[in-house]
Amino acid sequence: MSISSDEVNFLVYRYLQESGFTHSAFTFGIESHISQSNINGALVPPAALISVIQKGLQFVEAEISVNEDGSVIDTRSLDSLSLIDAVMPDIISNRKAELSKQAASNSQNIIKDENRSKSK
Amino acid sequence: MSISSDEVNFLVYRYLQESGFTHSAFTFGIESHISQSNINGALVPPAALISVIQKGLQFVEAEISVNEDGSVIDTRSLDSLSLIDAVMPDIISNRKAELSKQAASNSQNIIKDENRSKSK
Amino acid sequence: MSISSDEVNFLVYRYLQESGFTHSAFTFGIESHISQSNINGALVPPAALISVIQKGLQFVEAEISVNEDGSVIDTRSLDSLSLIDAVMPDIISNRKAELSKQAASNSQNIIKDENRSKSK
Amino acid sequence: MSISSDEVNFLVYRYLQESGFTHSAFTFGIESHISQSNINGALVPPAALISVIQKGLQFVEAEISVNEDGSVIDTRSLDSLSLIDAVMPDIISNRKAELSKQAASNSQNIIKDENRSKSK
Repeated sequence: MSISSDEVNFLVYRYLQESGFTHSAFTFGIESHISQSNINGALVPPAALISVIQKGLQFVEAEISVNEDGSVIDTRSLDSLSLIDAVMPDIISNRKAELSKQAASNSQNIIKDENRSKSK
Repeated sequence: MSISSDEVNFLVYRYLQESGFTHSAFTFGIESHISQSNINGALVPPAALISVIQKGLQFVEAEISVNEDGSVIDTRSLDSLSLIDAVMPDIISNRKAELSKQAASNSQNIIKDENRSKSK
Repeated sequence: MSISSDEVNFLVYRYLQESGFTHSAFTFGIESHISQSNINGALVPPAALISVIQKGLQFVEAEISVNEDGSVIDTRSLDSLSLIDAVMPDIISNRKAELSKQAASNSQNIIKDENRSKSK
Repeated sequence: MSISSDEVNFLVYRYLQESGFTHSAFTFGIESHISQSNINGALVPPAALISVIQKGLQFVEAEISVNEDGSVIDTRSLDSLSLIDAVMPDIISNRKAELSKQAASNSQNIIKDENRSKSK
């Protein structure tokens, strides 16, 4: 996996253009020497930056839901993660801790339920 | 999962600032009304945009390596995916096709090897 | 007398730089292709735009104070002309009319005074 | 005579707008707080900056052509003054010196001519 600053700049430039930030796009095009980029813009689909950011967010959500032993926690009960949350390591680790606790309590409840059933 | 444009703008703004694109950062700050954003910038770590883009790229790589049946293909033989490749749907599906073919041929070789061993 | 837009742009660019409008200076330098200008900036003194504007204002003040017959009206009694006033033709012609009226009334007073002296 | 920076900024802003420097106009409008200006833009005619610069240039030409004793030198023989020349004190004083010399030599020629006529 490799990310060059030329590539990031290209996606940012496109984002500025597509979002109607015309003055920012102009200035950034100059400052980042976008015209000297080797990237074939014709091949890059619209909203590419948003798309890759969305996948980054999905990746973070996946990270949260996977335990160290590789087992997957059900995250449906969790509030959805915002983009800004997703870039804050503290929030991510809190989320993960919260989720583990919840998962542990759920499994205890399941055991209790099973025991209750048996004792009947 | 939810992404607001305010959040994307904030990460882009930070990227422009951190990368030394001072004029672009100034203009974008104005055009995107960054000063009216509710995001507490003090909590956002440096290089947040790059970090989430990197995770987006990892997500795409994971997508490529997982078969429809959930089995995972070894992607070590593949060239690393560039960011621009990762935002092009055609390249992603080509990669996946290529990888499946390669995996199929590998598993056939394994079967052949096994048969050869047995026939001895 | 000849003014090229390259020359005006150069003075404007310098004004932006000298006045601390760094982002405007950057953007204008690009948009006006200042780097391709033939003007030797080393020879242009600071505050050149302000200086030529001030002279323009002095010229307007001179225009107001000169009658059609070439005689000069004393303008000391007039309020000083602001730059924005000086670019508005209506204000200039009003000023001139006002000044002529005043001058006419003054000269009548002088004649009256002279007559009064004589009659004594 | 008084020039406020608000007034100069307003004329510069208008110049940027009218000349099609849209990105510069945007950035300068922000940097110079043009929206907080008290100037009634509706009253300012187009090309106001150019107009006042032209008058500044006429003023410099007038300065060159007037001797210390108030007599006026015929400047028709001189090359027209460019705007950049007009803001360089050295060029202005050279012009003036050159013009005085020329005027002196002309008047000597006139005297010689007169003498020649007389001696005939």
